[in-house]
Amino acid sequence: MKGPLTVIDHGITLPRGFRSNGVACGIKRSLRPDLALLVSESEASMAGVFTTNRIRAAPVILTEERLRETKGHGRGVVVVSGVANALTGPEGLTDSQILVEKTERALGLPTGSLLHAATGVIGPRIPLPLVEKHLGEAAAGLASDRPAARRAAAAILTTDTMAKEAAVVARLSDGTKFHVAGMAKGSGMIAPALGPPHATTLGFITTDARTSPEALQQILAEESDRTFNMVSVDGDTSTNDSLLLFANGKAGGMDAGAEPVFRAAVGLVLEKLARAVARDGEGATKLLTVRVRGARDEAGARLAAKAIARSMLVKTALFGADPNVGRIACALGYSGADFDPGDLEITLQDGHRQWPLVQEGRPVPGLENGEGKRLHSILQRLEEVDLEVTLGAGPARATAWGCDLSYGYVHINAQYRT
Amino acid sequence: MKGPLTVIDHGITLPRGFRSNGVACGIKRSLRPDLALLVSESEASMAGVFTTNRIRAAPVILTEERLRETKGHGRGVVVVSGVANALTGPEGLTDSQILVEKTERALGLPTGSLLHAATGVIGPRIPLPLVEKHLGEAAAGLASDRPAARRAAAAILTTDTMAKEAAVVARLSDGTKFHVAGMAKGSGMIAPALGPPHATTLGFITTDARTSPEALQQILAEESDRTFNMVSVDGDTSTNDSLLLFANGKAGGMDAGAEPVFRAAVGLVLEKLARAVARDGEGATKLLTVRVRGARDEAGARLAAKAIARSMLVKTALFGADPNVGRIACALGYSGADFDPGDLEITLQDGHRQWPLVQEGRPVPGLENGEGKRLHSILQRLEEVDLEVTLGAGPARATAWGCDLSYGYVHINAQYRT
Repeated sequence: MKGPLTVIDHGITLPRGFRSNGVACGIKRSLRPDLALLVSESEASMAGVFTTNRIRAAPVILTEERLRETKGHGRGVVVVSGVANALTGPEGLTDSQILVEKTERALGLPTGSLLHAATGVIGPRIPLPLVEKHLGEAAAGLASDRPAARRAAAAILTTDTMAKEAAVVARLSDGTKFHVAGMAKGSGMIAPALGPPHATTLGFITTDARTSPEALQQILAEESDRTFNMVSVDGDTSTNDSLLLFANGKAGGMDAGAEPVFRAAVGLVLEKLARAVARDGEGATKLLTVRVRGARDEAGARLAAKAIARSMLVKTALFGADPNVGRIACALGYSGADFDPGDLEITLQDGHRQWPLVQEGRPVPGLENGEGKRLHSILQRLEEVDLEVTLGAGPARATAWGCDLSYGYVHINAQYRT
Repeated sequence: MKGPLTVIDHGITLPRGFRSNGVACGIKRSLRPDLALLVSESEASMAGVFTTNRIRAAPVILTEERLRETKGHGRGVVVVSGVANALTGPEGLTDSQILVEKTERALGLPTGSLLHAATGVIGPRIPLPLVEKHLGEAAAGLASDRPAARRAAAAILTTDTMAKEAAVVARLSDGTKFHVAGMAKGSGMIAPALGPPHATTLGFITTDARTSPEALQQILAEESDRTFNMVSVDGDTSTNDSLLLFANGKAGGMDAGAEPVFRAAVGLVLEKLARAVARDGEGATKLLTVRVRGARDEAGARLAAKAIARSMLVKTALFGADPNVGRIACALGYSGADFDPGDLEITLQDGHRQWPLVQEGRPVPGLENGEGKRLHSILQRLEEVDLEVTLGAGPARATAWGCDLSYGYVHINAQYRT
């Protein structure tokens, strides 16, 4: 194993003692998988961060309550995709309670063992009979192999075009080998949520490292703030965003909570999933990574990076491979970040090459002519566009991820659901 | 004249003593008009509100400085469309100074008489020789008739598909008849700017009423906050937003500054122009008006209304005529407005008919089936969609204007400028 963290092509069943499954209940008219289970063999420490939308989906309300009641001890999560179970009132909350309890019964677990998440259309209630009919099948198919992780990762998707998984292996300072893995879902209704605890989209992280729910919670909140909360696809913060982390301790060894390598492993998995969510934004053809340096403070760095990643004008320019530095500068200008326009530097990274776009607050010469055409060709070729912005106002940095705005985005979201 | 305010089909030359013109200098490759002049026969009180973007275009810097130096006394404005003269450094500011001084000379006005505004591509400098070559023609064609107002209204446009004019006539309490008229420009890079003084897009208002620059400034700031600042097309606050108000007193009579009818007349012209800007948003096929009632306070009402009008998911649903109440509720949820989701009511206004969408926090029955199909048909037919939102949290109200997000928006903004 080279280096402190090794990335592996695997999913949530890589850490020891986790089993998962995904089945199709028929909630989705496409008959794609829509029910995922993730279960730890033994009790796990659990942590969660959730949407700050004032309208909270029933699964979010239920899961937060369960995390409080169990003080972060439990066995796993049941995830429904296709319906959000949001804006469904008290009946929706009852539906979620029934669903979770029936799942616990199907798995032979005591009441209160499982958390719950959902994603999909806001408004309709969960078709409980459909789910109940497939709980036995879902439980029977739980496994800890690679395909089982894939089945779960597929069953949490909605408008996503690809499953999102990430996994790393590393060693604690006492030599204990541990794993962190995750799966995520997210393509639309994606924007940074404000105020801790916070998260965007759905994400589920497993680890066989051992630590307390309190340590987990702190690591999850801080690392999700730097990763999931810096993703924007459309600027719409969902009613259902949930990010859950399970640590079952099967790796043995020391408490991982204070180990930098453990935090780094969780952070790396979250960052990989966050990038995957941005890359798979609805209709996206390009991933945009914005690295801001030289901000006066971290809040300003975050505002600046997010304003660019979320600007509709930057996003459409990206789709058109237009090196439109005016739109980038404009977004910085209204971001709320503090800087002197004359100090602004913007660079396009192309692998190891750097193309200056703005220097000392001015577009580079020729951007309207020859240089612009060259950058246009480069942007056309790149599937991952990295912008580096230097504000010259201080030492703070932040990174945000977004994607372009294409005809595909309009197509996906303007279709009347029939 | 019926009622206190009568709307007239006219433009900025309706108030007595104003002349205008618009000519094509060739700044725009399309050879459409790109230079507008608006001049008062005699000294006018002037007021202005400007973008809060940290990157301020040279014309904004110059105009703010002149308003301060002249204490709000002057003769008019010269407007360039096609280039924004933003992100152009000290050279850009010099360009604007030269342009304005040459215009003053062409008009035989003393230095310091004119204000300045510009709109267009960010980055390039103004092609001064082109403008200078046409200043004589522009000055010679100044007139106070209806066509002259139209020429100016056309010459300030960029991606706009239609000119935006509004005019009203009314009487002060001493019986003095006065006029207020305006023209505006705005189609993209349009979003509410924060913090007074503020404005979005370009707007120029003339009146023959008499009042002080101080009274004008207060009225403009407050009425633009309720109108121009509640428009969102893409959420991008421009570097060039300027809204200027000129009062030359040619109507005679009493000071109009404290007259409610004068404020109402200015407000009505601003509201008509603001609606026109939203209706002509880039690629828009529908105007969206969001009226929020029952908010705890005005700030919350404004946040709620603006969040809906600016949501990419609401905007694409509108384009698809999809009665997607989940997206509207979601936007309210993350808007920052304080309300109990169970109290939420959302209604679609269709002329004198009302179609409930959400009642007591729940989508109305059948929205997924028959009722949804009916609303889909209604939304397909409507070119102006009025949503009424009741939060049930207090007495405050606000109205925001937006438009749908169509393939046209992407087409307009994703084209590489060659």
